[in-house]
Amino acid sequence: MRQSQLFTRVSRQVPKDEVSKNAQLLIRAGFIHKEMAGVYSFLPLGLRVLNRVIGVVREEMNAIGGQELTLTALQEKSLWEKTDRWDDRKVDVWFKTCLKNGTELGLGSTHEEPMTRLMAQYVNSYRDLPLLAYQFQTKFRNEMRAKSGIMRVREFIMKDLYSFARTEEEHAVLYASVRAAYLRIFERVGLGKLTYATFASGGIFSKYSEEFQTVSEAGEDLIYVDEASGQSLNKEVLSDEVLADLGIERERLIEKKSIEVGNIFTLGTRFSDPLGLKYRDENGQEQSAFMGCYGIGPGRVMGTIVETLSDEKGIVWPESVAPFRVHLLSLGQNERANIIYQEFTAAGIDTLYDDHDASAGEKFAESDLIGIPYQVIIGKKTIENGEVEIKRRENGLVERVALDALVGYFQKR
Amino acid sequence: MRQSQLFTRVSRQVPKDEVSKNAQLLIRAGFIHKEMAGVYSFLPLGLRVLNRVIGVVREEMNAIGGQELTLTALQEKSLWEKTDRWDDRKVDVWFKTCLKNGTELGLGSTHEEPMTRLMAQYVNSYRDLPLLAYQFQTKFRNEMRAKSGIMRVREFIMKDLYSFARTEEEHAVLYASVRAAYLRIFERVGLGKLTYATFASGGIFSKYSEEFQTVSEAGEDLIYVDEASGQSLNKEVLSDEVLADLGIERERLIEKKSIEVGNIFTLGTRFSDPLGLKYRDENGQEQSAFMGCYGIGPGRVMGTIVETLSDEKGIVWPESVAPFRVHLLSLGQNERANIIYQEFTAAGIDTLYDDHDASAGEKFAESDLIGIPYQVIIGKKTIENGEVEIKRRENGLVERVALDALVGYFQKR
Repeated sequence: MRQSQLFTRVSRQVPKDEVSKNAQLLIRAGFIHKEMAGVYSFLPLGLRVLNRVIGVVREEMNAIGGQELTLTALQEKSLWEKTDRWDDRKVDVWFKTCLKNGTELGLGSTHEEPMTRLMAQYVNSYRDLPLLAYQFQTKFRNEMRAKSGIMRVREFIMKDLYSFARTEEEHAVLYASVRAAYLRIFERVGLGKLTYATFASGGIFSKYSEEFQTVSEAGEDLIYVDEASGQSLNKEVLSDEVLADLGIERERLIEKKSIEVGNIFTLGTRFSDPLGLKYRDENGQEQSAFMGCYGIGPGRVMGTIVETLSDEKGIVWPESVAPFRVHLLSLGQNERANIIYQEFTAAGIDTLYDDHDASAGEKFAESDLIGIPYQVIIGKKTIENGEVEIKRRENGLVERVALDALVGYFQKR
Repeated sequence: MRQSQLFTRVSRQVPKDEVSKNAQLLIRAGFIHKEMAGVYSFLPLGLRVLNRVIGVVREEMNAIGGQELTLTALQEKSLWEKTDRWDDRKVDVWFKTCLKNGTELGLGSTHEEPMTRLMAQYVNSYRDLPLLAYQFQTKFRNEMRAKSGIMRVREFIMKDLYSFARTEEEHAVLYASVRAAYLRIFERVGLGKLTYATFASGGIFSKYSEEFQTVSEAGEDLIYVDEASGQSLNKEVLSDEVLADLGIERERLIEKKSIEVGNIFTLGTRFSDPLGLKYRDENGQEQSAFMGCYGIGPGRVMGTIVETLSDEKGIVWPESVAPFRVHLLSLGQNERANIIYQEFTAAGIDTLYDDHDASAGEKFAESDLIGIPYQVIIGKKTIENGEVEIKRRENGLVERVALDALVGYFQKR
């Protein structure tokens, strides 16, 4: 894409109403737009990153047999009353609204209820289980405070997967497969080294849930990590009893601030019982399905990447989620850059082409802020020498590559 | 995909609470699920079709230079008061809700206001125009009645594109390019022959808007068509004055019921004036941008395809939007079908494999209901003869193809 045709542009001014690094950088670089506190639109560059994160999550969910669908935001009161989660004292992030005839509706902040009711219609026999179903769907959460940029918002796309098993043993197998997929996801989007599967408080059906916590000063959580073993637990469950239970020594633990980028939860029959999700087992006996739920917010993952991987010059996107692979910077007007852009486009190398009339310094600063992995710099001098500079945004390393080897350089990787 | 791993299944029962053909067929075939009146979830097969319609629309919007972004559902009162569209008497489909602190919010039914405000931040000079920006985003409309299945719903994804031009003349060029893209879209999704660009009432800045109306008995609109010239107008503008203006003879017009599958509208400065979307022209004078808006609901397009192209046996998907290209039907247990499924998968032929243990008659009836374009039938007899039957869902025509030519048959098309 030619940058001159992108309606957004980079700004030097730090937005005054944002305190979080992710919002400041993403707004300055033209990735997002603040509609109001805790409500952000995704502009062309931001939507590209969000969709790439979604693409990684989708691949991993499909790889473990997840079936994608989309439920609705609008929710019926009567459904949530059956599980005692309609009352604002039980679920304190509801947005509520009304039909013209006065019927109260809610905007879903999570979807255990409609997902369970849906499956109750399709699951009859033990042959229909196990199954995994998931969606990328817009959640609404009436948060009291929203000061963390795109990491705690009132409206956001969430990937929520629900597992339905015959027994607790079968559930454990599904749970383990989703857990492994989550670790692959965080690895693939560049957060693997910073992210710990962390024990947190459970529910009726399990002692613990697990959160995926990415170490960051911007985090709202406190976790305790044993770096040698990789074990981690949330402050909320830190006690001598829990440490003994998990076999963790207190002395080895280091306190870290962290961002919750995902969570996985054993639900048991908490929802299948009241909503009648039952199946007939091999002996013809009716049993409640045993459930789990598993969430990742792609926008929060994107914000966490900005918080943890950016540097003093701007954002540093991992190649797996970058809005473009190559940022082609034309210094001065030169026809050569146009030709290279056409060659890259023809070769399927995803390129943002800075064809603006601006100084080299301005272009370098803007490119560093935007954070595309490879900067290909077409200057007069390099052209005279028959070569161009390729600069890695991640570490600033520069390679000189002969003009006729340029397309091959990117095709080989 | 193996059908035995799909959690939905086909039902013979017509849902009692649905009067529309599209909802009846789509629910029976497991494409959608009714959450409540006018609110439908998209199940795996349905989501595939919806995403393919979205894919066609996205390609055509990108081809004319549209920049994709995503705005939010949550809307600020103060923004919509500036254009006098907050009051329920002005916009009668609002869903309203509240923040914890009591601040009123709305759920967007359309997005002229936030889109215009966004562009006011980025557009300064005549050099920044023209531009086209669009999104696929969930709209909420508090409809009084909702009896038309997925064609008139309270929550749905809409593609809304907005054009921003320097002058009315430049607007006319953008408008024409979007209009042509819309005609290509309806052609590509199989509705081209049934769909008329139809004059409808305009606004302050144009005599007429244009609706894309697909002829169907299920339609809520009445249009008058001159079949010879292809001209069409909505009943709401049928008058001697309008006919004279458009050069249409009343005698040539035939009344038809139709579904509005898209609309395009000249907005002029209706939104750019109150929201301050101005640019400096070549002479340094401030001017308001001249706008247009252009909508298509991919879900309504999907419903319209079901209403107009299905037959007494079920749905007939055009290949461009079908959930799968091939429905592989294994009659009886046969290892050959497994092998063919693996070959199709390896060759990238998008296949739903009916590996259920059911009678041939049941499988044929279910496949006809689901409506995948090619049915590949693997029976014992055909295998003995070294060939399989390929049946076109569209017209029932059967071809016999040698086993070793089967993959090539689909790769060649």
